[in-house]
Amino acid sequence: MNTPSIFWLVPAASLVALAVAWIFYSRMKREDEGTERMREIAAHVRKGAMAYLRQQYKVVLVVFLVLALFFAYLAYGAGVQNPWVPFAFLTGGFFSGLAGFFGMKTATYASARTANAARQSLDRGLKVAFRSGAVMGLVVVGLGLLDISFWYLILDRFTDVAGPQKLVVITTTMLTFGMGASTQALFARVGGGIYTKAADVGADLVGKVEAGIPEDDPRNPATIADNVGDNVGDVAGMGADLYESYCGSVLATAALGAAAFASAGSETLQLKAVLAPMLIAAVGILLSIVGIFLVRTKEGASMRELLRSLGVGVNFSSALIALATFGILYLLGIENWLGLSFSVITGLAAGIVIGQTTEYYTSHSYKPTQKIAGSAKTGPATVIIAGVGSGMISTAIPVVTIGVAIVLAYLCAIGFDIEHMMQPHNLSQGLYGIGIAAVGMLSTLGITLATDAYGPIADNAGGNAEMSGLGPEVRKRTDALDALGNTTAATGKGFAIGSAALTALALLASYVEEIRIGLLHNGVTELTLSDGTTRLVEQASMLDFMAYYNVSLMNPTVLVGVFIGAMMSFLFCGLTMNAVGRAAESMVQEVRRQFREIRGILTGEGTPDYARCVEISTRGAQREMLFPSLLAIVVPVAVGLVFGVAGVMGLLVGGLGSGFVLAVFMANAGGAWDNAKKMIEEGHFGGKGSDCHKATVVGDTVGDPFKDTSGPSLNILIKLMSMVAIVMAGLTVACHLF
Amino acid sequence: MNTPSIFWLVPAASLVALAVAWIFYSRMKREDEGTERMREIAAHVRKGAMAYLRQQYKVVLVVFLVLALFFAYLAYGAGVQNPWVPFAFLTGGFFSGLAGFFGMKTATYASARTANAARQSLDRGLKVAFRSGAVMGLVVVGLGLLDISFWYLILDRFTDVAGPQKLVVITTTMLTFGMGASTQALFARVGGGIYTKAADVGADLVGKVEAGIPEDDPRNPATIADNVGDNVGDVAGMGADLYESYCGSVLATAALGAAAFASAGSETLQLKAVLAPMLIAAVGILLSIVGIFLVRTKEGASMRELLRSLGVGVNFSSALIALATFGILYLLGIENWLGLSFSVITGLAAGIVIGQTTEYYTSHSYKPTQKIAGSAKTGPATVIIAGVGSGMISTAIPVVTIGVAIVLAYLCAIGFDIEHMMQPHNLSQGLYGIGIAAVGMLSTLGITLATDAYGPIADNAGGNAEMSGLGPEVRKRTDALDALGNTTAATGKGFAIGSAALTALALLASYVEEIRIGLLHNGVTELTLSDGTTRLVEQASMLDFMAYYNVSLMNPTVLVGVFIGAMMSFLFCGLTMNAVGRAAESMVQEVRRQFREIRGILTGEGTPDYARCVEISTRGAQREMLFPSLLAIVVPVAVGLVFGVAGVMGLLVGGLGSGFVLAVFMANAGGAWDNAKKMIEEGHFGGKGSDCHKATVVGDTVGDPFKDTSGPSLNILIKLMSMVAIVMAGLTVACHLF
Repeated sequence: MNTPSIFWLVPAASLVALAVAWIFYSRMKREDEGTERMREIAAHVRKGAMAYLRQQYKVVLVVFLVLALFFAYLAYGAGVQNPWVPFAFLTGGFFSGLAGFFGMKTATYASARTANAARQSLDRGLKVAFRSGAVMGLVVVGLGLLDISFWYLILDRFTDVAGPQKLVVITTTMLTFGMGASTQALFARVGGGIYTKAADVGADLVGKVEAGIPEDDPRNPATIADNVGDNVGDVAGMGADLYESYCGSVLATAALGAAAFASAGSETLQLKAVLAPMLIAAVGILLSIVGIFLVRTKEGASMRELLRSLGVGVNFSSALIALATFGILYLLGIENWLGLSFSVITGLAAGIVIGQTTEYYTSHSYKPTQKIAGSAKTGPATVIIAGVGSGMISTAIPVVTIGVAIVLAYLCAIGFDIEHMMQPHNLSQGLYGIGIAAVGMLSTLGITLATDAYGPIADNAGGNAEMSGLGPEVRKRTDALDALGNTTAATGKGFAIGSAALTALALLASYVEEIRIGLLHNGVTELTLSDGTTRLVEQASMLDFMAYYNVSLMNPTVLVGVFIGAMMSFLFCGLTMNAVGRAAESMVQEVRRQFREIRGILTGEGTPDYARCVEISTRGAQREMLFPSLLAIVVPVAVGLVFGVAGVMGLLVGGLGSGFVLAVFMANAGGAWDNAKKMIEEGHFGGKGSDCHKATVVGDTVGDPFKDTSGPSLNILIKLMSMVAIVMAGLTVACHLF
Repeated sequence: MNTPSIFWLVPAASLVALAVAWIFYSRMKREDEGTERMREIAAHVRKGAMAYLRQQYKVVLVVFLVLALFFAYLAYGAGVQNPWVPFAFLTGGFFSGLAGFFGMKTATYASARTANAARQSLDRGLKVAFRSGAVMGLVVVGLGLLDISFWYLILDRFTDVAGPQKLVVITTTMLTFGMGASTQALFARVGGGIYTKAADVGADLVGKVEAGIPEDDPRNPATIADNVGDNVGDVAGMGADLYESYCGSVLATAALGAAAFASAGSETLQLKAVLAPMLIAAVGILLSIVGIFLVRTKEGASMRELLRSLGVGVNFSSALIALATFGILYLLGIENWLGLSFSVITGLAAGIVIGQTTEYYTSHSYKPTQKIAGSAKTGPATVIIAGVGSGMISTAIPVVTIGVAIVLAYLCAIGFDIEHMMQPHNLSQGLYGIGIAAVGMLSTLGITLATDAYGPIADNAGGNAEMSGLGPEVRKRTDALDALGNTTAATGKGFAIGSAALTALALLASYVEEIRIGLLHNGVTELTLSDGTTRLVEQASMLDFMAYYNVSLMNPTVLVGVFIGAMMSFLFCGLTMNAVGRAAESMVQEVRRQFREIRGILTGEGTPDYARCVEISTRGAQREMLFPSLLAIVVPVAVGLVFGVAGVMGLLVGGLGSGFVLAVFMANAGGAWDNAKKMIEEGHFGGKGSDCHKATVVGDTVGDPFKDTSGPSLNILIKLMSMVAIVMAGLTVACHLF
């Protein structure tokens, strides 16, 4: 099949993104890194971050090799999988890690430079930090689309299948690449999340409480680990996470398009359905870059003005993307281009609403967080109760928004043919519309991730300023930059969660289509339904497969799957919460050992072994991350082997429902506790050091693993479980107990 | 149709239960209430409890009248509902309240008597408290079965419908009685839960912190409210809750039996399916009484021996019930009596496993709670993190257990005909087996609730001993009694949660059957399925209805329902958590006012206005409980009107999945925090007053609304939503947007 020339927009856009990222990176590198002390501290953090990556990659490499060997066996030994699968899986993991690596490298170079720029002015500081954040945003989307176009071209050339099955095979193989990205992202998020919170708690407990030295003091061996943690958790972890979300939404929609339109007979229609999400993403990249260049601010701008100028960039990009979508889908000539364009807008709009809601429930400019801060008057217990209460209530609007978006995206795609909304053709079109909405929501990622990644850079700049003994006015400026970052980070989390829900739905639909491939692979060409009628597997609809496998809400295996899925989210969160506790314990022991064994460390004459401390904590985090992450891979396979297709679908739906809501709850409760503390630090309710402040510090500490470890990992969990189910669909179809 | 003579076992068993309860009650009343001071305090608590009930009943009465008028309109105005529905609804609420009222009355009489008995010996104290607990257990099951038999006889006589539809109409009308019980229970649990925690926090904050007087000091106007709270939350609330669970499981299974076997043609078969759950419950009552009489202990028995003698009673009852089930189902002559008997045993066994798991995760004899206590060394934040982590992990075994129970109960009921497990007849039989398993799990309620209700009585006895200034050795004995109660309470919560999950599944199945009635009511006699075939509504199977309404996991309206259902659990918990905070605030203001306005209150010369304080707090609790409780009624109706049958089924499944898991998490985390504090109070990690103790007090305070307000309310929420959906099925079928 000929690749239409419009496709080349996809690799072109990705190369433009990478080029612009390179320009921003070079400019940032040319900035002055400040005093000797600032350079030294930045170098320690950089070294520590690399130490983390070394250890992380060792563990993840083993996991990837084992899984790749398994896939290689399936492909070359058993002959039941595409020979490209092991490679696609490996490169997905590799590029996901690479996006995190580049983001982290940029961040570790940018922190001292931001602090130094903040010595001159608030505005200079913002510029350096935001540009560095933009590097990360553009690298993620650039690498993402580059890999997608690369694999599309490779597989298009080397896939030796005729007819509509060709694109199905191509997109399915590409989903393995998505599974690689998800696996890497889960490890990065969970490992990084455990690491950053363990180092944080460990540094505080031994340094501040036992040795009595101030926070961020360079004599504390865990201080560097603490700063490294911000980089590995909030930068590398988030980079891999959003890389996975971005690719996941495009790949899931493409796979759904290929599979759903395969039975429709028209290969042109099918090809367009595969290309549409890539093109929307490509246009999104280009217009995000335009938005980034629009973020300009005059010398001495106020915080409100800064926030507004960031908003101008994001909103302008969104509006342009919305307009451009109509054009690109029209040019592509896809069936029902108008309806699908409105599906994209539904996704864009839902993302904005969720972002705003997140801000409302987590910013101390609004009542919910102010009430949490006020509850500190009666101690830490009421802070926790208020935060849990507010966080749980905050799930309502995002869930309803996603619900409305799902229905609207579906209906737009089928031209509001409500009466026949479940007929095979409409079902495929409608579900495809939901996938396209997810792509729409993430199309602004180039710029939203820039504002998002800017946060931890500003945070680290503050740490650098403190450790280097820069003046209080510099620290005040970095604090202001940090506060701005908190607000934008909230929006970013909203996008990640919302898009995960939509993407998971698209993956669920892809799973049903995968069953066809699984059946054909197992030599089944005809289905006999319970009413005695038969269907050719090649021509059967999604609903036929579901009827064949009794995927009904009355089937006890579906219901058991729903229960297990709902439980998985909680179990996963519980395991990661406890892991933070245990890893912090290892850190405490290591710091105590160094204080005991390295001479002159407290007088400043001996140098603490930062790297060793970082490595110990990293190893702890890596050990702790293995079990929960592997669980996410093993459970869908196990449920499939016992309960078959019906159980797996129950599992995915149950996991999606409770995982989505739990993720919103944890992210918002954590964010609100953080900002309630910040509000008191700004002087309300007694200010820093008061009993109220101490009460909110407890809330903040509890919120840390909520918002930075368990909560964001859930987004990846629900997608990874779906991708595992898809990749293993052939096995499930071949053997299951029920 | 003739009522078979075996039916009379049901009212007979209920009358035996009530008679035994009366005997225990009279014996308890003959015990000495102790010193003048003890009587006085008990009288205050009793008066406060009555003040609560007055206020509670005012609010609930209004809600019931509005709903009953609405049902009356549907029955007499629109003519679309059975004329008995409004009355059934009202009596369900009335008897549920009555069960709570009797339990509370007994508890308020028993507390001083238990304290007085504990002055003589530990054993005497246990006897008085346990017998009083047994009153509650027997009243709940006795009233429950009495009402069920009463309505069955009334409706059997006055229902003017011929053929298999008669039993369907009877059992559906009886489900309205279940909805009344659920509504009352939800108000009792939420209101009582908010009340008890608000009074607790309010009394502590003003009394201990501001006025500097010790806990349980009679000068504190909120002290009585605090003790009243234990009665209204843990006794009246739990009584109404378990009354609802008990009746709910029997009614749901009976309705499912009637509906599912209506199309099978045999009215005898149908009648037997309706009577079986009632008979199992009746046998359970009688054998529970035997178990209660077995709870004897020799003078001066150790704690371990006491616990063992309680265990002997429960286990003996369970074993006898298991055996008797085979006999009773054989005598009834129900189809597949052997398989169904094994379904009952599945339920019984699952209840025991869940109870044991709950004990493992909440008792400080085991590692999880010990670790939470140990984490107090690093402050309150790590206590919260450890508790949340452990609570989330604790969901795994109960969920898997219920999953196994669902599948086993289903398969036992269909004779392990796995290959045809989804054929219409097997589907009805299998789902009925799940309902029967829920009845089996709750069949031991007479005795398990006795051990459960014993807890708050022992707790109140301790309060009375403290306020009356009894010696430390008495307080030590009441503490020991209290600790025993904590362990048994954990088991009781496990039963309540597990049975809720199974009952909700039975209700879900009943809902599908309700659609038939709804369609017939709306004059629809034939369905045209998407494949063009038609079915007579009278003969259509459950799966036909689901196909007709597109209840498929690929239908976006189902998925939106799942999301909203999952969110409802969180929203409901968030609202009730926040309500506790706000109600505590009102209490604080009232206590401050009394200190200010009533002269000589702090010198002991003026008497605080206990009743006013109780009323203020009650009114606060009542105001706060309205919104979340009404939400549970309104949302299923709204989802039905917008998204139709498919949306409602998604809602129920989503709510069930996440509600069940969330309830287990909250109950276990709360219980573990409570016992971690108790462990430290017993002298570990520095003991009472240490920093570790303070840290666990924070955990305990956070856990209070988890385990006593939000968590247990979820059990009711998921069933109430199902019952509302069932009662409103006719409306949903008649008008919906999608």
